[in-house]
Amino acid sequence: MSMFMKNCWYVAGWAHEIQSDALFTRTICGRRLVFWRDRAGALHAMDDRCCHRGAPLSIGRKEGDNIRCMYHGFLFDINGVCIEIPGYDKIPPKARVRSYAVVERSRWVWLWMGDPEQADEALIPDTHWLDDPGWACTPPGYLHFDVNYQLLNDNLLDFSHLAYVHANTLGGSEEYAQLRSKIERLPRGLRITRWFMDRPPAPFAEKLVRAKGISGNVDRWNNYDFLLPGVLIMDSGFAPAGSGAEKGHRDEAIEFRHCQVVTPETENSCHYFFAQPRNFDRDDEAVNQALYKSVLTAFGEDKAMITAQADSLKADPAFEPVACGLDAALGQFRWMIDRQIEAERQEAAGAPLSESVGHIEPAAAKLA
Amino acid sequence: MSMFMKNCWYVAGWAHEIQSDALFTRTICGRRLVFWRDRAGALHAMDDRCCHRGAPLSIGRKEGDNIRCMYHGFLFDINGVCIEIPGYDKIPPKARVRSYAVVERSRWVWLWMGDPEQADEALIPDTHWLDDPGWACTPPGYLHFDVNYQLLNDNLLDFSHLAYVHANTLGGSEEYAQLRSKIERLPRGLRITRWFMDRPPAPFAEKLVRAKGISGNVDRWNNYDFLLPGVLIMDSGFAPAGSGAEKGHRDEAIEFRHCQVVTPETENSCHYFFAQPRNFDRDDEAVNQALYKSVLTAFGEDKAMITAQADSLKADPAFEPVACGLDAALGQFRWMIDRQIEAERQEAAGAPLSESVGHIEPAAAKLA
Amino acid sequence: MSMFMKNCWYVAGWAHEIQSDALFTRTICGRRLVFWRDRAGALHAMDDRCCHRGAPLSIGRKEGDNIRCMYHGFLFDINGVCIEIPGYDKIPPKARVRSYAVVERSRWVWLWMGDPEQADEALIPDTHWLDDPGWACTPPGYLHFDVNYQLLNDNLLDFSHLAYVHANTLGGSEEYAQLRSKIERLPRGLRITRWFMDRPPAPFAEKLVRAKGISGNVDRWNNYDFLLPGVLIMDSGFAPAGSGAEKGHRDEAIEFRHCQVVTPETENSCHYFFAQPRNFDRDDEAVNQALYKSVLTAFGEDKAMITAQADSLKADPAFEPVACGLDAALGQFRWMIDRQIEAERQEAAGAPLSESVGHIEPAAAKLA
Repeated sequence: MSMFMKNCWYVAGWAHEIQSDALFTRTICGRRLVFWRDRAGALHAMDDRCCHRGAPLSIGRKEGDNIRCMYHGFLFDINGVCIEIPGYDKIPPKARVRSYAVVERSRWVWLWMGDPEQADEALIPDTHWLDDPGWACTPPGYLHFDVNYQLLNDNLLDFSHLAYVHANTLGGSEEYAQLRSKIERLPRGLRITRWFMDRPPAPFAEKLVRAKGISGNVDRWNNYDFLLPGVLIMDSGFAPAGSGAEKGHRDEAIEFRHCQVVTPETENSCHYFFAQPRNFDRDDEAVNQALYKSVLTAFGEDKAMITAQADSLKADPAFEPVACGLDAALGQFRWMIDRQIEAERQEAAGAPLSESVGHIEPAAAKLA
Repeated sequence: MSMFMKNCWYVAGWAHEIQSDALFTRTICGRRLVFWRDRAGALHAMDDRCCHRGAPLSIGRKEGDNIRCMYHGFLFDINGVCIEIPGYDKIPPKARVRSYAVVERSRWVWLWMGDPEQADEALIPDTHWLDDPGWACTPPGYLHFDVNYQLLNDNLLDFSHLAYVHANTLGGSEEYAQLRSKIERLPRGLRITRWFMDRPPAPFAEKLVRAKGISGNVDRWNNYDFLLPGVLIMDSGFAPAGSGAEKGHRDEAIEFRHCQVVTPETENSCHYFFAQPRNFDRDDEAVNQALYKSVLTAFGEDKAMITAQADSLKADPAFEPVACGLDAALGQFRWMIDRQIEAERQEAAGAPLSESVGHIEPAAAKLA
Repeated sequence: MSMFMKNCWYVAGWAHEIQSDALFTRTICGRRLVFWRDRAGALHAMDDRCCHRGAPLSIGRKEGDNIRCMYHGFLFDINGVCIEIPGYDKIPPKARVRSYAVVERSRWVWLWMGDPEQADEALIPDTHWLDDPGWACTPPGYLHFDVNYQLLNDNLLDFSHLAYVHANTLGGSEEYAQLRSKIERLPRGLRITRWFMDRPPAPFAEKLVRAKGISGNVDRWNNYDFLLPGVLIMDSGFAPAGSGAEKGHRDEAIEFRHCQVVTPETENSCHYFFAQPRNFDRDDEAVNQALYKSVLTAFGEDKAMITAQADSLKADPAFEPVACGLDAALGQFRWMIDRQIEAERQEAAGAPLSESVGHIEPAAAKLA
C-alpha cells in the first residue's frame, strides 16, 4: 500500500451514489470500503469486511444507523465497533472494523484514508461550482480506467496531448502543442497556465462561441490547479481575440470551471470523476447534453490512449521514459506524491512530521 | 501440495459420471486425474497426463481395459504401466503413470490420494442412505465453488449462519443463531448437536410438516458428524413440539440423512457433492423435486456468501479474523487438518506414523 | 528474454499483412513491434513504444516515411530516431526507438531480433516455392497457439503423431507411427527423412492421387529440414508404389514443398505461418481450397492436442517427461536452441563468438 498517499482527501464518489436505504461499496487505494448513511443522512465509511470471518459488509443489512453482517450476524455501529454477536454476551475488544472520515461537499464524497487525527476538512479543495446556483453543471461524470492513477495524472498535467489525442474534440490546431505552459509550485500542487491567443476555437466549443456572436478568432485559456492527491480545478474559456481576457476582461467570454479528480482504486486501476460547470446558457439542456457528450467522447479518447500506454508499459517493466520539457509538470507532481508517501512512511516509523507536508490552505480557493 | 491431506478418502464424483464407454477427467487436490471403467465395470484412476510428453490421457482412447494416449500412441494398463510404445520394443521402466485407489460405494466414487498401502476401505464413511431402498433420495447434487475448500468446511461447521444466509430457506427465525451447538471430538472428526425446541418449522419444511398433520410448533434437530477430510453426515428432522424426539421418540417425526462432501479441486476451488435422503413421502416425486430445489437455492446462497468472502480475503491476505465462540468447531477442524498434513509431511520425511492419525473406525457408522 | 534466440531470422508475418497506408503491430519474442512501409514500399520495424511516455506507436500516424506518436506528437524516422518534439528545438540524443532489420522475401517478412551487425540475409532460408510460378500455393495460413513455441517445434519434429492426432486427415494407418525417421544434423538444424512404402495414400491425398491415375498403393515421403529458429521446409509427395521415387524418379508423383514456421510471440504463445506449394493441378482452385481446408483441419487437431498438453504441463511445472527414441529429433533441436541462447548470452557478456554458432549457409537450399 505504500504506493498511495493516505493523509489527503480523495473523492470516493458522487453523493447521490450513496442512497439512504442501501449499502454502497467501492475500492479506494486498494481497500474495499462500504459507505452508508445513518438515519439523519450523514455519511459513514468503514472497511467492507467483517472482522469475524471476512465476509463483505456491503452484502449485509442496514439496521437503523448500524450494519449487520449477514453471514453470522455481527452488528457494527457507525464507528465500526461490533455491538452484537448473536448468542454471545461478551464481545471481544478486537471485534471492530476500521472506519474512515468521510465528508459530503458540493455533490462529492471526500474520504480520508490516513491518520484520522489529521483529517482536517479545511484541506478539502473548493469545488463549489458543482452546486453553485450561479453556475450550470454537466451531469455527474465517471469513467473507470484500468491503469495506475499516475498515468491519468500525467495525462492531465501535460495539455500538449490535446493537439493529438483530442484533435477533433477538445484540441484543434496542432499549434496548441507548441505552447509552453507556465508552471508554478503551490503548497499542495501545481498551478498551470496556458493561453492560446487569436486562434479558431476548439472543435467542441465552436458552435457555442459562434452562438455568443463571436465570429472571428478567440483567445483561449486553460488555467488550472492540480492538487494532491489528483484534483484538477480549471478556469478555462473563450473570449474574442484581443478582448483582454488574459487581463481579466471577461464580459464577452464564455467560462468553465472544470472539476476533475483521479482516485486510485488499486495499483492498476483508478476512478475518474468529473463535471464541467459553466456560466452561460445555464438553462439550456441541449447545451448541457452537448457539452457532456463532448467531454465523454474526449475522455474516452484519453482512456483508449492511456490504456494502450499502460499495456505497453506492463509488457516491459524495465522501460525508462526519455524525459523532455513536456514532462516538467508531471515530473514535479510525481515527485510531490513520492515525497508525501515517504513522509507518511517516516511518520508511521515514528519520525516527526516534516513541515513540507503539513497542513496548508487549499490552493484551489484562489481560483474562484 | 502440502495444503491438502492425502491419506484419506475423498469423494471424486457420482458413480454415474463415469460411463463405461468414456474417459472422465476431474482435478482433485491439485492433480488432474482420469477415471475410467474396465470391461468388468470396475473403476480405475490415474494421473491425466501421459508420462511421455505430458498430453492429457482423458483425450485419449479406451482400448479394452487400457488407455492409449492419442498424441504419440503410448498405451497404459489399469495400473498406469506403459505396455506399448509404437515402433519400439523396449519400454523404459520409468514409463508409467501414477495410479490411485478408487472405490465405488453408495453412488459415490471414493478416491485415496496418498500412500496406497494405507488405503483401507474400512475408513470410507457410511453413506448407505444414498441408495438404501428404505430411504428416498433427492437427485445427485453438485456445485463448484471458486474458493479454498476450508471456507466451505467453515460454513458447514457453524450452523448459526442459517439464520442469516438462509433466512428464507433452511433457516427461519434469527433465534436459531442464538443456539449453542454441542461439540464432541471424534477420532477423525467432530460430532455436532443442535436442538431447536418448540418453534415454527424452517421455511423449506413448513409444507412438509403441515402435510404430516403437525399443526403447531416443532422440535427441530441438526445433528451431524463432520469427518476428515470434509464429509458431513447429518441426522436432522422435525417432530411435534414436546413429542420427545430428542429422547428417541420419532414416530411422528420426518427425518433426513443429509450427505454432503467437500473435495478440494485446487488451492482456490472445490467440489461440493450432496444429496438428502429422507424417510417420508418416498414415492412422491413432487416432494423430491421441491426438496432438491430448496437445497439448491440454499446452497446457492452459501456459494454467493462464501465466494464474496473469498474475494474479500484475497484482497488482503494479511487479514486476521477475530475469533469468537461461534468458531469453536471450525477452529478444531482446521486444527485437525493441519495436524494430519503435518503428520503426512513427517511420515514422508521418514518419521514413524503417530498413533493419533492412524486407522480408526468411521464415526459416521454410529449415526445409522 | 533469455528464452529466445535473437541472432536468427524469424518470420514476422505475411507480406500482405503490412499495407502501405497502415501501421501493423505484432509481438515477437516478447517484444511488441510496429511494422510499416515507406513511400517506396520498403519494410521497416521498430519497438511499438514511444520513447517518451511509452505509448504504442502503432496507434500513431504515418507521415511520409516516418511515424508520429499521437499522444504528444514525437516524430520518428525509419531508423527509430526522434526527429521532432512539438514545441522543442532540442531533441535529447536518447530520444530514439530501437529498430530492427526486416526483409521481405517470397511473401514472408523476415525479422532479425538480435545484433544488427550479424543480420546476414544469406541466412534466410529458401522458401521460393511460395511465389515461384512453377508451383501453385495454398492461401497464406496462420494460426495462433497459446503455448510455448518449443511445444509446436516438438510436434513438428516427431511425425509419428500423424497416426494418432491426424488419423483422418494427414495420417492414416497406425503403421505410419511404426516408422523410424532418419535424422541428420545440419549446421543450423536437422534433416529428417521418412519413407512409407507401398501403402494406401493418406486420407487428405486419396482423391488427388486417384485423380492422377494411381489406383493402387503408393510410396509416400515426408523429408524435411527443420532449421533454427523453427522453420520447416518439406519435400513430400506420393508416387505409385515401386515407381522409384526414393531414387529420384518422380514423373508419376505428386509433390509438395510445405513451408511452415513457428515464431515465438511470448513465453506462452506463438505464431504459426504456413503454406503448401505443389507441382500439380496448379490452376485448379478447387484442389487449392481442398488442400487448404485439409491443412487447416489438421493443424487445428495439433492445436487442440498441444494446447491441452500445455495446460497439463502448466498444472505441474515439476513434471519430467520420460524420453524415448521418438524424442531424438526434438531433443537435439531443443539442445541446439539452448546452445545458441547460451552462446548469445556469452557473447553479450563479452566472450568471443564460438565457431559452432556462426554463419553457415542455409541448409534448406539443398532441397530445391
